[in-house]
Amino acid sequence: MISRIVARFPQGPEVLLGPGDDAAVLAHPDGRSVATMDLLVEGRHFRTDWSGAYDIGRKAAAQNLADVVAMGARPTALLIGVGLPGRLDVAWAEALGDGLRDECAVVGASIVGGDTVSAETITVAVTALGDLGGRAPLTRSGARPGDVVAVRGGLGRSAAGLRLLLAAPVGAGEAGAFEEWIGGLPERERALVAAHRRPAPPYTAGEEARTLGATALLDVSDGLVQDLGHICRASGVAIELAASALPAAGGVTAEDLLTGGEDHAFAGTFPAEAALPAEWRVVGRVTRGAGVTVDGNVPGRGGWDHFGV
Amino acid sequence: MISRIVARFPQGPEVLLGPGDDAAVLAHPDGRSVATMDLLVEGRHFRTDWSGAYDIGRKAAAQNLADVVAMGARPTALLIGVGLPGRLDVAWAEALGDGLRDECAVVGASIVGGDTVSAETITVAVTALGDLGGRAPLTRSGARPGDVVAVRGGLGRSAAGLRLLLAAPVGAGEAGAFEEWIGGLPERERALVAAHRRPAPPYTAGEEARTLGATALLDVSDGLVQDLGHICRASGVAIELAASALPAAGGVTAEDLLTGGEDHAFAGTFPAEAALPAEWRVVGRVTRGAGVTVDGNVPGRGGWDHFGV
Repeated sequence: MISRIVARFPQGPEVLLGPGDDAAVLAHPDGRSVATMDLLVEGRHFRTDWSGAYDIGRKAAAQNLADVVAMGARPTALLIGVGLPGRLDVAWAEALGDGLRDECAVVGASIVGGDTVSAETITVAVTALGDLGGRAPLTRSGARPGDVVAVRGGLGRSAAGLRLLLAAPVGAGEAGAFEEWIGGLPERERALVAAHRRPAPPYTAGEEARTLGATALLDVSDGLVQDLGHICRASGVAIELAASALPAAGGVTAEDLLTGGEDHAFAGTFPAEAALPAEWRVVGRVTRGAGVTVDGNVPGRGGWDHFGV
Repeated sequence: MISRIVARFPQGPEVLLGPGDDAAVLAHPDGRSVATMDLLVEGRHFRTDWSGAYDIGRKAAAQNLADVVAMGARPTALLIGVGLPGRLDVAWAEALGDGLRDECAVVGASIVGGDTVSAETITVAVTALGDLGGRAPLTRSGARPGDVVAVRGGLGRSAAGLRLLLAAPVGAGEAGAFEEWIGGLPERERALVAAHRRPAPPYTAGEEARTLGATALLDVSDGLVQDLGHICRASGVAIELAASALPAAGGVTAEDLLTGGEDHAFAGTFPAEAALPAEWRVVGRVTRGAGVTVDGNVPGRGGWDHFGV
C-alpha cells in the first residue's frame, strides 16, 4: 500500500533523495532550514463524516505549508506520518495522499518521506520544511510601535462553516448524509463549509510581506486576536484593532473574524509608510504596551471567547 | 504545560530560531538537509506498563536519530508531535520530554519544535533533521558484489528482551508490577529488557562507516535479514550471511540475531580491502544476484519468520 501511494508523489528538483532510504535529502541552498510540525487527530482536528480523505489531506498540508510561508520561506518538502485504523480501505489512504500531494503542488513542495502505522484513531503528523533563499526569516518579534497591522486572506470563514456543520440536522457518523445536506445549502453557506473543509491559504503572502517590508508575520491558525497576541508578546508591543475594519458579512460574524482560526490567512505588521495593496487589509496598529484590544476593549470579555479558542 | 516542557530543552548552536514562532530555523551549512519521520503509537510501538515515559522518549528519539546517522549525517534537530490522553499528568509529559532531550544530548541535537494535542491513545511523532557536512549521503544503493557486510552494535537483544516481557507472569496494565518483576530478574535478562526499553545505537557508526569507505549503510530497525534486503533491492545485489558469524549467546537466539529489530545497530557494506576494526563485525558478503541468504538458505522458510517481522 505504501509503495502504491508513494508512487503518486512527484519529486521536485530540490529532492536529492526521496522516499525509500533511512532518510530523505533535500537541497536547501540557503544553508538554513525552516521546519515545523503539526499532529492532527480524528475527532479533534477533523471528522470523517464532515470531510473526505482528500480534503483532510489538503487541510493537513495547508496548515503546515502556511507556517513555512509565514516565516518568509519557500516550502520545499513534507514528511507525513499516518496512523490508520483497519476499517479504512486503501482507497481512503490513497485519497489522503492525493490531497497532501495536490496541496504541495500549489507551492511546489514534495512529499519526501514519512511513516505509516496501524492505529485505533486516524492520526496525521505533518512536518513541513522550507528554504529561506538568503533572506532573514519573518518572525513574530519585529513589530514596532507605529507599525500598521494588515491581513491577507479570509478570516472567520472556516469558523462560520464549522458552525453550520455543528448545527446540521444530520446524524453524526453519516458521511453521505452530510454530503447530501451540504449539497442542498445555499451557495453562500456551501462556500463557508468548503472554507472549513479545505482552507486555501494565500501562499504568495510571505513573498509579498517581505517585499512590503513586513516587520512581523504569522498565519492565523487559532484566531486573529489570539495569534496577534503572539506578536505582542514576542515583540513587546500592543496591538489595537479597529472593529470597523472587520465588518461582519456573508454569514461571517464579528466574532468569527476575531476568533476564528484555520483559514490560514496571514497577519503582519508593516511600517506606517508601507504602500499596502488592496489584498492587504489594514485592521489595526501597533502601539506601546501589551496585548490586543478591539476599539479599546480587551477581547475575551466582550462575548467572543466562547468558541473554544 | 508546553512552555514548562519546552523550557527544559536546551538549544544548540545550530538552532537559529527555536520553539515559539511559526517554524524553527536551523543552520544546515552544507546546503542540504537530511529528514526522516516516525510515528509511534501506544500498544503498538510501546506499552506504558513495560516502559516509563522517560524510556519511551529515549527510544522514540533514538530510532530517528539513528536514521539520520545511517545517512552519514550529523543529527541537528528533532520536532516532536505528541498526542496525550487526559488520564496522563504533567509529570508524565515532562518525563517523556526529558527522555527525548537526553537522547538528543548524546548526539548534540536540539528539540526545536512540535505540537501537543489531546488524543485517546498516546501518540509520538518524531521528525529528525541532519546536516551532511559537505559529504555524500550514505545510501542503500551503493553495495557492490565483492563487498563485505559488517555490523556495528548489538543485534537481537531488543527482541530477546521483548520475548521476556511477553512471557512475564504479570498482568497487563500493571506498571509497578512489571517493574518489580524486572527488578527480580537475573542481571543478564534485566540487560535484555533494558535493551528493549532503551536501545543505545552506536551513533559514531555513521562517521566510522564513512571513514572506512562504506558503500551502503542503514540502521537495523526491522531485523538484519529484512533490512539487508533493502540494500539488496536498492543496490541490485545479493547478500550471503554466515550463520557462524552470528552465534547465539547470552539469551539471544540465532533467530533474534537475524530477525530482531529495534536495537538500531548499523549494518553496512564495505570494500573487501577495508581494514575494519573489531567493533565492525563481518557477517557476510555481497554477491551478484538478489535477496539475502543465510548459509545458502533463504530466511523466512527456516523458522525465523514468526516474530512479526
